[in-house]
Amino acid sequence: MRIIKNPDRKDWLKLVQRPEMAAADLDAVVKEIFDAVQQNGDKALLQFTEKFDKVKLDSVEVKNANATAINSDLEKAILLAKSNIEKFHATQCEEVKRIETTIGVTCWRESRPIERIGIYIPGGSAPLFSTILMLVIPAKLAECKEIVVCTPPDKNGNINPVILFTAKLLGLETIYAAGGIQAIAAMTFGTETIPKVDKIFGPGNQYVTAAKKAAQNFGIAIDMPAGPSEILVIADKNSVPEFVSADLLSQAEHGADSQVILLSDNETVINEIISQLKAQLEKLPRKATAALALENSKAILLKDIDSCIEFSNLYAPEHLILAIENAEMFIPKISNAGSVFLGNYSCESAGDYASGPNHTLPTNGYARSYSGVSLDSFLKKITFQHVSKKGIQNIGPAIELMADAENLFAHKNAVAVRLKNLNHV
Amino acid sequence: MRIIKNPDRKDWLKLVQRPEMAAADLDAVVKEIFDAVQQNGDKALLQFTEKFDKVKLDSVEVKNANATAINSDLEKAILLAKSNIEKFHATQCEEVKRIETTIGVTCWRESRPIERIGIYIPGGSAPLFSTILMLVIPAKLAECKEIVVCTPPDKNGNINPVILFTAKLLGLETIYAAGGIQAIAAMTFGTETIPKVDKIFGPGNQYVTAAKKAAQNFGIAIDMPAGPSEILVIADKNSVPEFVSADLLSQAEHGADSQVILLSDNETVINEIISQLKAQLEKLPRKATAALALENSKAILLKDIDSCIEFSNLYAPEHLILAIENAEMFIPKISNAGSVFLGNYSCESAGDYASGPNHTLPTNGYARSYSGVSLDSFLKKITFQHVSKKGIQNIGPAIELMADAENLFAHKNAVAVRLKNLNHV
Repeated sequence: MRIIKNPDRKDWLKLVQRPEMAAADLDAVVKEIFDAVQQNGDKALLQFTEKFDKVKLDSVEVKNANATAINSDLEKAILLAKSNIEKFHATQCEEVKRIETTIGVTCWRESRPIERIGIYIPGGSAPLFSTILMLVIPAKLAECKEIVVCTPPDKNGNINPVILFTAKLLGLETIYAAGGIQAIAAMTFGTETIPKVDKIFGPGNQYVTAAKKAAQNFGIAIDMPAGPSEILVIADKNSVPEFVSADLLSQAEHGADSQVILLSDNETVINEIISQLKAQLEKLPRKATAALALENSKAILLKDIDSCIEFSNLYAPEHLILAIENAEMFIPKISNAGSVFLGNYSCESAGDYASGPNHTLPTNGYARSYSGVSLDSFLKKITFQHVSKKGIQNIGPAIELMADAENLFAHKNAVAVRLKNLNHV
Repeated sequence: MRIIKNPDRKDWLKLVQRPEMAAADLDAVVKEIFDAVQQNGDKALLQFTEKFDKVKLDSVEVKNANATAINSDLEKAILLAKSNIEKFHATQCEEVKRIETTIGVTCWRESRPIERIGIYIPGGSAPLFSTILMLVIPAKLAECKEIVVCTPPDKNGNINPVILFTAKLLGLETIYAAGGIQAIAAMTFGTETIPKVDKIFGPGNQYVTAAKKAAQNFGIAIDMPAGPSEILVIADKNSVPEFVSADLLSQAEHGADSQVILLSDNETVINEIISQLKAQLEKLPRKATAALALENSKAILLKDIDSCIEFSNLYAPEHLILAIENAEMFIPKISNAGSVFLGNYSCESAGDYASGPNHTLPTNGYARSYSGVSLDSFLKKITFQHVSKKGIQNIGPAIELMADAENLFAHKNAVAVRLKNLNHV
């Protein structure tokens, strides 16, 4: 971890830059797989599964009724997480607010579910059943009609039992054993087995990311642009070095490209955290990965906590931990962040799993312009308006003048025909 | 206008398809202009303005203090529209709702403005000052710090006086006389004069659309994907053919690629509307354009209003007019639409200019997954959480089990170090 002391403000812009992502040109491979799945559906999907996942399946359909029991303590843990995630996302329901903007002109908006949702859950060493919770729970709250979950099978053609259990718990009867570009292609076009969707959510490697980007060219929406996961911790003398270093490592273990930043107004605190980091790193199973991530990470000493917040706003971290005294006092100053954790006991892991807020958050500086996934991500808000006879009399002449000034005479005429014919209901 | 009577349900999917957009490959020209503006800033911008807009400017900066007076009736009309748009968008402010999901675990979200907003206003024959109202008003309500408006200059280097007036009215001191790909490039990278932004809004031709798409590769968010404007009107015997045909034409005059669809359960009504269409078309200054759009348009007879609503949901129109009896009764059945207009006097022009809701809406079927522009489009929602000592005791063991099951041991450790050290604040 590189220590930078009191950098000049003119160097901040350089310090907040993420490393350039090696933009592997995957367009050709994405196009090939998309074309094949669009033309040959399930047949192509099963061929790619054999090629990439090294397993020959008869069908990608996996019935959750076959889910086996899991450890009962883990089951209770998942139920607690489910309950908290449901409670938090339920607060995001919006009530309809009608307003009469001018007498006779009533306007409001109503939420409607996005009908068909696709969710991608990566395979590999970590079976991310927590991501199923984070994406299926708000989709269910939003009352999306169709929720399609794809996740790659292992070499024996199986899906992790905790993933199956979680899907079943959330009321999904089926999930699909398909991964990578071919899974995204299947949800984009639909196959005989996998339904076409309107919006695709979920994390993934560079292939999945490239495929989600390509899906947008076929009218499919996606949750948000992807990038490596990030944490920024602001620590002062009130912080507990052992806690802070554990938080930094919990980010670092995600991958060698994870972004880890520590800010403090206190050099002793920085040194204590770094010495703790070294000790804790030794005990980690994912030590090699975390060590690589830490090589690119920075500890930055700044003159006070206000400067730390300013720097953080410029960086726009996915996760921001305020391990400082009176953390709540600084909330109004936070302008760019995905999710914020306040005080010594609010670890990022809490938000990753069980406290309630969503863990699908904007990375790579996108917290400047994107929100994390929420109930809203599964809804559209449709505006409605009713203009009465009185209403068109009140605003009609203004519309005619404005349409005329924009040279849109048919727009003007749509009002004119009404103003001269007020005999209808 | 082609009349289709009682099409088979299996043909609906074909009927709701939009014409393939000729995807002109503009990547090379976008790249050239983006590179030049990124490297040479204002100098490149002024060169492209000379090349494409045929005018040599000394600076792209236009001070609104120089805005000249406009017709006082038009001024009053704009003030009315401003007031209604403000009132409606103000209803979209969200109050903070804190929830204790588990004892000791408090979560909420707070809105923050996207700091730097770019707005593109097309030039050409129609000076779209209404789009300035629709995009600057919510940006101001959201308290965005920087609002950059770009619009191309005319051949004499001037900006339309109504655009200048509207910008000044909304408190913008400066707007920028820049158009096309080069304007989007300037807002993407920033130049000596034009600030870099976080998100770009606004309509435009295929060049602007291609440039907005390219801007996303540089970390800039955009409002939504673009497509030709659309209207779908559902009319029954209660509708007024003169009104409906005026509405269809107000869409058709936008451009030859405008999408116009009429649905009814009544053949006589369809015939009356079409005969009105022919009569009204003759009187339009934009007759040629509207006639081209009507050539591709469809009138579809279906067995009842419920079927019309179902068809409309499959089509997912940008604008939906329900010119039917008891229109409000059908609201719960509407699942996909940008903005809905209820009854005989709610013309689309009302929503385009002055009733209050936003006129920047999803086209091309994107109403299945996107909302129109609203206050939310200018905000991020940041989640916050505070986990107390009691809180981590309540949810910590569950987090440990879940992290363990996902093989993320540093995530587990971030909880473990806290559970064994509860002596801190």
